[in-house]
Amino acid sequence: MLRSARSTEDRPMAGKGRHFLNIPGPSPVPERVLRAMNRQIIDHRGPEFQTLGREVLEGCRTVFKTRQPVVIYPSSGTGAWESAIVNTLSPGDKVLMVETGHFATLWRQMAARWRLDVDFVPGDWRHGVDPAVIEARLVDDKAHAIKAVAVVHNETSTGVTSRVAEIRKAIDAANHPALLLVDTISSLGSVDYAHDEWGVDVTVSCSQKGLMLPPGLGFTAISEKALKASKSNGFMRSYWDWEEMLKPNAQGFFPYTPATNLLFGLKEAIDILLEEGLDQVFARHKRLAAATRAAVEAWGLEVLCKNPAEYSPVLTAVLMPPSHDADAFRKVALEKYDISLGTGLAKLAGKVFRIGHLGECNELMLMGALSGVEMGLAAAGVPHRRGGVAAALAALEQPEAANAPRKVA
Amino acid sequence: MLRSARSTEDRPMAGKGRHFLNIPGPSPVPERVLRAMNRQIIDHRGPEFQTLGREVLEGCRTVFKTRQPVVIYPSSGTGAWESAIVNTLSPGDKVLMVETGHFATLWRQMAARWRLDVDFVPGDWRHGVDPAVIEARLVDDKAHAIKAVAVVHNETSTGVTSRVAEIRKAIDAANHPALLLVDTISSLGSVDYAHDEWGVDVTVSCSQKGLMLPPGLGFTAISEKALKASKSNGFMRSYWDWEEMLKPNAQGFFPYTPATNLLFGLKEAIDILLEEGLDQVFARHKRLAAATRAAVEAWGLEVLCKNPAEYSPVLTAVLMPPSHDADAFRKVALEKYDISLGTGLAKLAGKVFRIGHLGECNELMLMGALSGVEMGLAAAGVPHRRGGVAAALAALEQPEAANAPRKVA
Amino acid sequence: MLRSARSTEDRPMAGKGRHFLNIPGPSPVPERVLRAMNRQIIDHRGPEFQTLGREVLEGCRTVFKTRQPVVIYPSSGTGAWESAIVNTLSPGDKVLMVETGHFATLWRQMAARWRLDVDFVPGDWRHGVDPAVIEARLVDDKAHAIKAVAVVHNETSTGVTSRVAEIRKAIDAANHPALLLVDTISSLGSVDYAHDEWGVDVTVSCSQKGLMLPPGLGFTAISEKALKASKSNGFMRSYWDWEEMLKPNAQGFFPYTPATNLLFGLKEAIDILLEEGLDQVFARHKRLAAATRAAVEAWGLEVLCKNPAEYSPVLTAVLMPPSHDADAFRKVALEKYDISLGTGLAKLAGKVFRIGHLGECNELMLMGALSGVEMGLAAAGVPHRRGGVAAALAALEQPEAANAPRKVA
Amino acid sequence: MLRSARSTEDRPMAGKGRHFLNIPGPSPVPERVLRAMNRQIIDHRGPEFQTLGREVLEGCRTVFKTRQPVVIYPSSGTGAWESAIVNTLSPGDKVLMVETGHFATLWRQMAARWRLDVDFVPGDWRHGVDPAVIEARLVDDKAHAIKAVAVVHNETSTGVTSRVAEIRKAIDAANHPALLLVDTISSLGSVDYAHDEWGVDVTVSCSQKGLMLPPGLGFTAISEKALKASKSNGFMRSYWDWEEMLKPNAQGFFPYTPATNLLFGLKEAIDILLEEGLDQVFARHKRLAAATRAAVEAWGLEVLCKNPAEYSPVLTAVLMPPSHDADAFRKVALEKYDISLGTGLAKLAGKVFRIGHLGECNELMLMGALSGVEMGLAAAGVPHRRGGVAAALAALEQPEAANAPRKVA
Repeated sequence: MLRSARSTEDRPMAGKGRHFLNIPGPSPVPERVLRAMNRQIIDHRGPEFQTLGREVLEGCRTVFKTRQPVVIYPSSGTGAWESAIVNTLSPGDKVLMVETGHFATLWRQMAARWRLDVDFVPGDWRHGVDPAVIEARLVDDKAHAIKAVAVVHNETSTGVTSRVAEIRKAIDAANHPALLLVDTISSLGSVDYAHDEWGVDVTVSCSQKGLMLPPGLGFTAISEKALKASKSNGFMRSYWDWEEMLKPNAQGFFPYTPATNLLFGLKEAIDILLEEGLDQVFARHKRLAAATRAAVEAWGLEVLCKNPAEYSPVLTAVLMPPSHDADAFRKVALEKYDISLGTGLAKLAGKVFRIGHLGECNELMLMGALSGVEMGLAAAGVPHRRGGVAAALAALEQPEAANAPRKVA
Repeated sequence: MLRSARSTEDRPMAGKGRHFLNIPGPSPVPERVLRAMNRQIIDHRGPEFQTLGREVLEGCRTVFKTRQPVVIYPSSGTGAWESAIVNTLSPGDKVLMVETGHFATLWRQMAARWRLDVDFVPGDWRHGVDPAVIEARLVDDKAHAIKAVAVVHNETSTGVTSRVAEIRKAIDAANHPALLLVDTISSLGSVDYAHDEWGVDVTVSCSQKGLMLPPGLGFTAISEKALKASKSNGFMRSYWDWEEMLKPNAQGFFPYTPATNLLFGLKEAIDILLEEGLDQVFARHKRLAAATRAAVEAWGLEVLCKNPAEYSPVLTAVLMPPSHDADAFRKVALEKYDISLGTGLAKLAGKVFRIGHLGECNELMLMGALSGVEMGLAAAGVPHRRGGVAAALAALEQPEAANAPRKVA
Repeated sequence: MLRSARSTEDRPMAGKGRHFLNIPGPSPVPERVLRAMNRQIIDHRGPEFQTLGREVLEGCRTVFKTRQPVVIYPSSGTGAWESAIVNTLSPGDKVLMVETGHFATLWRQMAARWRLDVDFVPGDWRHGVDPAVIEARLVDDKAHAIKAVAVVHNETSTGVTSRVAEIRKAIDAANHPALLLVDTISSLGSVDYAHDEWGVDVTVSCSQKGLMLPPGLGFTAISEKALKASKSNGFMRSYWDWEEMLKPNAQGFFPYTPATNLLFGLKEAIDILLEEGLDQVFARHKRLAAATRAAVEAWGLEVLCKNPAEYSPVLTAVLMPPSHDADAFRKVALEKYDISLGTGLAKLAGKVFRIGHLGECNELMLMGALSGVEMGLAAAGVPHRRGGVAAALAALEQPEAANAPRKVA
Repeated sequence: MLRSARSTEDRPMAGKGRHFLNIPGPSPVPERVLRAMNRQIIDHRGPEFQTLGREVLEGCRTVFKTRQPVVIYPSSGTGAWESAIVNTLSPGDKVLMVETGHFATLWRQMAARWRLDVDFVPGDWRHGVDPAVIEARLVDDKAHAIKAVAVVHNETSTGVTSRVAEIRKAIDAANHPALLLVDTISSLGSVDYAHDEWGVDVTVSCSQKGLMLPPGLGFTAISEKALKASKSNGFMRSYWDWEEMLKPNAQGFFPYTPATNLLFGLKEAIDILLEEGLDQVFARHKRLAAATRAAVEAWGLEVLCKNPAEYSPVLTAVLMPPSHDADAFRKVALEKYDISLGTGLAKLAGKVFRIGHLGECNELMLMGALSGVEMGLAAAGVPHRRGGVAAALAALEQPEAANAPRKVA
């Protein structure tokens, strides 16, 4: 027999106010989005759905900054990764990837499962993709064995944002025909991104980060070149097949039953983003991230990301002092202050915690979260200086100063 | 033609995160309560309603700490005031009231409209009811002309909490038969209160403060003595008549159509309060109020309430520096940081702003709100010292110290 | 301790589909209205509320068909009755009322509680107000002792709709200055009604019938003449006082905390009504009522209302065959087919059941409901002919024929 | 720019009551399920999620009637088909499938895309799988080249339910080692099904039919034999890989971000099913289906399913009279009576319409829907006899008679 419906809500502090969800995704879902999803389901083959389908497909193009197709899957972002691979590549194809962190590593593992030949540029999990390295590898690849360069725009495990536009330039400089595949899972809707202008071939994303939806939708934006590649590549596929999607999408429909209620929410989320204005959204994320780093610095702790040009506007990963366990701290913060912080992943386990400041986040929500971190550090006995909260407050009031890089790694 | 449904949501900052609602009520409605109300209406004469009716009437008794009847009206708290008057008193009756602030004054105006003869003890809006004054007046009233003592437990306009148990003792010391009527509109569910133990005759309350519901329900808890008075008092009444209510209430029903969806929410709100535990709820309010006062003191501003024994756990009213307008500051805070603060009422207009920290509020929500106040003060050019947020943080981490009174007026 | 949150939902048939709520109010709440109410509360003194306040006050004028003020109370409809009395009349005033059924009788009881001198024209609970009788009584009242004529537009207890426009003419024909007070509690938004055009002085209504909201709002629309009367009439009042309401209403605000979430819903409900168009809404109610009567006739049962010109578009009260108990039948229908039907009230208890077909109701919902009645009659062993459902179906397909009166009482 | 949020709700009849969603899925979502999903997202790596994860995984086992693992994907049911294939088979494997209708054909197409060698037993789209044919083919397959038998339990395109338990017996009778893969996409939670008892190896399902959720979840229940096959089969895979799922599932977690809000709903949906009792749920579906067929017969139309032993409890596909277009009729029914009926798929396009009576459906909802069909037939000028609604009513009142087969094809 199942336990009662209430059981999943019984956090010890459930009665005393809002939980602070400051993991780097899923991000808090705005009330407007929850309300938009709280609707009776409709016939996915009827005229009302058709209007919805057209609206969300068009809206996605605006957010990805593309006039080319965006495909929406009922899936996680992981599914969208797989879609990018199976639609464009063939078994044994060589792919250039860069070890920016845990998610780059997972994508590489997926590529390996699909028997791609991955050239995995090693990394220290504290820097983004170096465009110069990409250029060098491609220049070396005279035979054009490399079929794709696949990078993570915002490494959710490290809080490092790679410079995709510069990677594009590196590929162009090498005059190399490789496809450019980009994971924007934790950046889309939070960090400026331009699928068309930057010449990306496949942009992979999902619903539960900058789009502020619950998880359950995966996206791929597809260039003409990628679409052409998909006509002749060698992977068997069915669920992820673009061609099957694009035909009914042209009419606002889907080849199999779409996740309609999430699409209700997607329409509302896109409205919210466009009402604020994408540029304002991106500026807000940068402002909040700068304030967070000001707090970290004041605490005497270290931001994992070493290159100020690559600081993530989405999340900040913070190194723990030696011999202090990040998860022990996170547990204290959760139990005492009802705040969820991101765990360190893979080789960073226990060594970093991550503060999400993305999606539905504003100055006061951030200040609440940073207060939770500061009090949590104290409660968990983690050595630090006080004053992070005060520093963040100062940074928010002088955003220009705060945004300026302070030191270079 | 009506404007679009969206119009009421279009705050300039609507896209960028949660609004901070820090007025002293209505207080934020917990997601669980909103969800509980989001239900199809039911037959208010059917068996399903009967169960609900019994549950909420019993639950209210727990929250008011009484075994006597609690009546629930579809009304605002103002209606419950009227109910207390028209059910127990008669035109021309003498009533002892105390000018603790705006709401005491409004209640007195209502009493005057009902042609009661109000002895209104003057006050400076910075102190609560002085039990010694009550005792003196009652002792003087040898003829027992005074039929009721009517006081406000927590003055929402000033942030001063009167000591009801001591007022009871004062009445007893005077050996006076006057009824004790208490407005707990902004205290119930936030500040300890015991209708039975404290010998209160009518306790008046409402839904949108400590009970964390939207507005729309008024309550009166009724002692045996008050009920007896209602059998022979002289006011005409119908809607507010207790007798009409109590008959069907005994079966879980109501004499006219109740506000069913608010009752769905009431049931959930009572569950939430009891899950946390009333004592924990009250302690939390005191903790948050102490931290707020620590911030005010650090800013170099003055708390309106002069007597530390009467500091409100519900809200803190803050005096503006001379020649600075509180509403101008509030407007800046709203527009720049999306926080709603309480306005100064009546003679306090422009002179104070009020910070609500009641109901669904926790440490991190409070820190966000205080950050908004501190940044708002700066943005509005209000002279103050920095460091309020830091002081609040320190207070939250040393709750015992913070709770201790610091100076006596 | 409270029982579990689930308990109020545990109808035996809760798992097997939608409940059919066919009582004559509260009527089913449209999903759009529930969704509109499912919002975080806002500051009732802030700019966002002001927009909402203005929108709903203006929208109400459209629905009441008036350019004069409409006042919105946090109350049930019963409260709005009281408002009409205490704002316009004085103790001892003579009022002409008509015994159209249970609610007219209750209003009269309320008038008696307010020590009005009620001339209560007796009725058989099967006819509406006879305008000729009104005219005769007023003509007889040479001294103009009668200060008000107070009638119920749609008697919810009997399913009889009085002809208000003709009552107006009768008053005019008698050249009598009495105020005309009309209860539109179960007609507003379902039956054509024109406060201004029909010269009504106070129109009383509520939220949970044709307006399709949950209960919790009372309304009075107020003519200039009524407003003038309120300046000098003799009842003490405070909560219901119009003057106190109208001042802040002019700016979109309220004198005490309004039931904000119900106002969110009111805005949406008005939108829904106006999107369909009031004339279409009224025509739909007539069409559904005609189909219901066709079913009743086919069952060989009798509609309580005797005058076809007074058939209610809102509900149909059906006489049980002698020696069969309506409530026993209703219980069977509820338990076996999960449909709620209205009970017989007061002297009609056990003798009639009432089928609500108002608000959010359409052809197919009605057919479901009538199927429930027909199967319920069989299950409860109530003598009847089959074929009611089929007759209703035929009536819906030939609405003109069905709307035509079939016999005159 | 996007159109307004309202646009997708603007059906012409949107103001006048509930839409009747009688397509064979997505089925109407119960209010309780919508409410359960209307929650703030939580950390999918935290303790609160873990409880939820364990509850839904265990609950699924109850519904699938298995003690073996059930895997939940963020996907449509189509994704779960793919999962069954890529986890158990290898390129070139021979699979025995049966052409029961459109969905069997689509599954076969998917198998072909994965380069399986499909032996597709032809069918007339009016019968289910013939167990004798399965047995014969397997007996013939001495070399055991056939690696799997893949059948659709309830053919959503035709309203024919295959007898899975007998297919199991046929495989056993042939003493053949083929895996048995079953699509229960439109049967799970509506038609009795026993994964373990019937010896099914992979059961494929989804959220939006008998489970009464919005679309967005795919399921596979996995036998030990299937799991063993997955260790050594030949398809590349990542997203669908069982092993990756089962590891974190053992702790209540998922390998990639799960569709948390749908899992909130899943928990509630399982509660609803178990509260009613699975046997009662299945009996209700059969009762409603029998009443629907009684209506079809009375209309003089023909049920597509020819074998009474295979009538679907989930939906009824109805043949149109020659030279009448089903979609023209459906359009009239939608526009005039606001009911969505299922379209004829593939070779049945225009020739049949489908009435869904699954999930949250009860007697009165069905009667409303059948009334819509009967009135729609008339409005669209489709030749038929009246009386279908009356016949359904009679059938519902004599469920035993109605359930009895009336004729055998």
